[in-house]
Order: sequence, then C-alpha cells, then structure tokens
Amino acid sequence: MNKKKGIVTAAIIVIGNEILSGRTQDLNVSLIAKWLNNLGITLYEVRIIPDIEKTIVNTINKVRKKHNYVFTTGGIGPTHDDITAKSISKAFKKKYQYNKEAYALLKKYYGASRFTIGRKKMAKTPAGAQLIYNPSSGAPGFYIGNVFSLPGVPSILKSMIGGLTNKLSKGKKIFSKTIHLKTVESEISISLENVQKNNKRVEIGSYPFFKDGKIGVSLVLRSVSVAEINKCANLIKKFIIKRKISFVEERAV
Amino acid sequence: MNKKKGIVTAAIIVIGNEILSGRTQDLNVSLIAKWLNNLGITLYEVRIIPDIEKTIVNTINKVRKKHNYVFTTGGIGPTHDDITAKSISKAFKKKYQYNKEAYALLKKYYGASRFTIGRKKMAKTPAGAQLIYNPSSGAPGFYIGNVFSLPGVPSILKSMIGGLTNKLSKGKKIFSKTIHLKTVESEISISLENVQKNNKRVEIGSYPFFKDGKIGVSLVLRSVSVAEINKCANLIKKFIIKRKISFVEERAV
Repeated sequence: MNKKKGIVTAAIIVIGNEILSGRTQDLNVSLIAKWLNNLGITLYEVRIIPDIEKTIVNTINKVRKKHNYVFTTGGIGPTHDDITAKSISKAFKKKYQYNKEAYALLKKYYGASRFTIGRKKMAKTPAGAQLIYNPSSGAPGFYIGNVFSLPGVPSILKSMIGGLTNKLSKGKKIFSKTIHLKTVESEISISLENVQKNNKRVEIGSYPFFKDGKIGVSLVLRSVSVAEINKCANLIKKFIIKRKISFVEERAV
Repeated sequence: MNKKKGIVTAAIIVIGNEILSGRTQDLNVSLIAKWLNNLGITLYEVRIIPDIEKTIVNTINKVRKKHNYVFTTGGIGPTHDDITAKSISKAFKKKYQYNKEAYALLKKYYGASRFTIGRKKMAKTPAGAQLIYNPSSGAPGFYIGNVFSLPGVPSILKSMIGGLTNKLSKGKKIFSKTIHLKTVESEISISLENVQKNNKRVEIGSYPFFKDGKIGVSLVLRSVSVAEINKCANLIKKFIIKRKISFVEERAV
C-alpha cells in the first residue's frame, strides 16, 4: 500500500467458473475499473478464479494484504454454487451467519410467506460485515475489512457501486488524453520511446487497432498532471506532423 | 499439475494497463477459454497485471509452476510499453535476443529497406524460444517452456491460437448442457442443491440473467460424461415440470 504517496490501489477478484469456461464474457472488470479510475484509485491486479472455497479463501487472504481495497464479483446469490460469503467468512475467521439488517430487508422485499429457506441464504454474511445496498433486486452485497463483495450480474453490480463511492479513500485523480493516429506502431516506436524516456511522469501507452477495415494506433497519455500530458502530446504531435501522419486528438479528461 | 488424472490445467496472464484502466474491454480471455475448453484443458485462473517488468517476471514464475500451460496476452509489439518478451527472458533467466527465424520472417514481410530498428524489436525473444506463427500481420508470438506469448489484439490472437493446438497435451473433453428456465434462482435453489449433492461428478452452475426485459436462470451442467449430464438434467426437469416452470433445453456439447 502506498497511501502516503497519494497512491491508493485496488484489486478485483472475479469468482466464477462461467468466466473460466468461456461461457460468459466478463463485463464487470471494465465497469469497476472505470469507476475506480475516476476516484483516483489504481486498479493494480485482477484475478479470475473458480468457485472453489479453498482457492477463494487463499486468494482473498493474499490479495487483501497487498491493496487498499479488494472487490469481489459473483457468488452471492441463493444457489449451491454461491459460496463467496461463506468463503470470505473463513478468510476473515468470522462466523458465517444471518445478518440482521439483510434478513429484515429481504423479508420485507419478498414478504414473510415467500421468504423461503433458499432466499434466506442471501441474508448470510461474515459476522460483523456491513451491507452494500442493492437498488435493483433486493439482495445486498457486503463488506468486511477492505473486502467488498458485489454480485456477478453487471447491470445489478453497476447499480450498487455508486453507493460505495463515499466509503473509499480517494487517490490523486489520473487524467488521460488519447491521440488516434493513422499509422502502424512500428512507424513511430522509436520517436515515441524518446518522448517516454524524457517524460517519465506521464505513462504513454500505445494500442494498435484493426477495426471495420481501419488500421491505426491509439496513444494514451496518463498522468496526475494535465500540463505534463499536454507537454507530451505536443512533443508527439511534432513528430507525427513532420511525418505527415494524420491524427485525431481527444481532450484530456 | 494433475496430468496423471487426465486433468490438464492452464492459466492466462493478461498484460495490459489498458485493461486495468478500464479503457479496453478484454475479449481474449473468453476466446482462449473456449478454445482450451474444447481441448479438455481446464482454465484454472486468469491474472490481469500492469506493464511492470518486476510484476510480469514474478507472476510468470509463480504461475508457470502451478499449471501445465500459461498463456500471456499483450505486450509483444514494437513500442516502448511492449515488454513481455524481455520480462519472460528474465523470468527464465535467458538472454533477450534476436530470434533468427523471426528476424528472417519479419525482414521478408517488411522488405529489407523498411525493416527499421523499431520493427526489428519484434524479432526479439528469450534465447531458445520457438515461434508462434501469425497469419494476420507477420509479427510472431513465441513460446518457451510451458509459457506461450500471444498478442493483445483479439482478431490477431484468434488467428494464431489454432496453430498451437497440436503442441498441447489434451485432457478429457468436458461436455456441457444448458437448461434455460423462466424463473428466479431463489425459487429453485434448494431442489437444485439436492441434485448437486447426489451427483458430484457433474458440476452444476446456476446463472441468473436479466436481458431485454427477460428474467431467467441458465443452469449449466458440466462433466466428462454425457450420460451423467443427462441423468442430472432429467432430475432437474422433474422438479421444474412439477412446478410448472417453463424451460428450454440445449443439447449436450
């Protein structure tokens, strides 16, 4: 952790056999990544792991020591393969038990007569966990220590993360600017490397694209300083204009 | 590794700041996952890590001991942020040097006069690495030991993995069948858990969906035995028919 330097880091643990089998395309990583990015929190690593208790426990315990925040996705529903809350209880050596608030909330949501044993499972969290409210479908997520557990369905997850924003320490906002070039990477790599070498406080990423028959390169400049980004952008534009490469420049955001 | 039991496992290491910043939606994990699944190779874990040499070296060295195969995506282009080949050289304690075959291949692809220093970088691999041919855009991937390095652009990666199929040991093919139900998970969780408890050789996954206004649950049954899958499917259909839940059943594949 590098809180002192204004760097706040996070990891995501995607819990789900359905992602590892290729059946389901994960969409949550980019959702959470964009949200964290706006909060100045650096997403440092993502792990996608199977629905195996021991693997979940070990991964949680390794990762939560390394980062300010850990977000898990998936495995908090009512079925037998939903083992995230139970596994996180084990990781934290806490009882896996009914959370009073979640119990009351779900009982109200379903109505007492339809609040079956199957549904009651969704009210269980590690002892001492607090809830992450779910405006879409009732069943809450939870957090304990620095670990935040969210559902796997992207639309529901998306509706829940906003409520967490005020609970997190923010880092320095990282700005970025993208310049799209009509060229290939190998035409510009040496000049670009020189700009990077002389401007270490800006991270320059180069990403080729091949889309709808169009070939190009997107250069992404990232830094806590917009002035430094613009300085780099000007150095890049200098060599691309000289070489008559056409480009489109986005504003720093 | 569990080769003896017919279980062959793999990991993917996605190398890319662009995924961690949320700028780019990863599509390679599901591409590789589906391909491995068809080969009977179990994708056991995925790690998404930043373009930092030390992190790449450490992650490669941890993960390659745990699985039969490791696939990396990203970071093998010509720009300064493409550090996968150099990092893997360090992980294997091999020289990072021109690969003669890659050099000849790229020289031919670009023509001697256009084979610039920037482009020559793409001919560098760890000493002793072998090439993964690229039918789309010339620049090859490479493999050394059990680590296979592929590019980050999905269409190019897709065109390259087919050529690797014959180089991998296959595991037992895992079949799967999906049953889509018009219900919610909490209506069926207890009955489903009983089927799972009595049929441990079939892995039953339950995945809610909320799509185009439709709500439902997809049950995915996975096993090396189609007979066991069908037995489970019949047990499930028994309780869903009894409860008048409508369903669509796919064929086991």
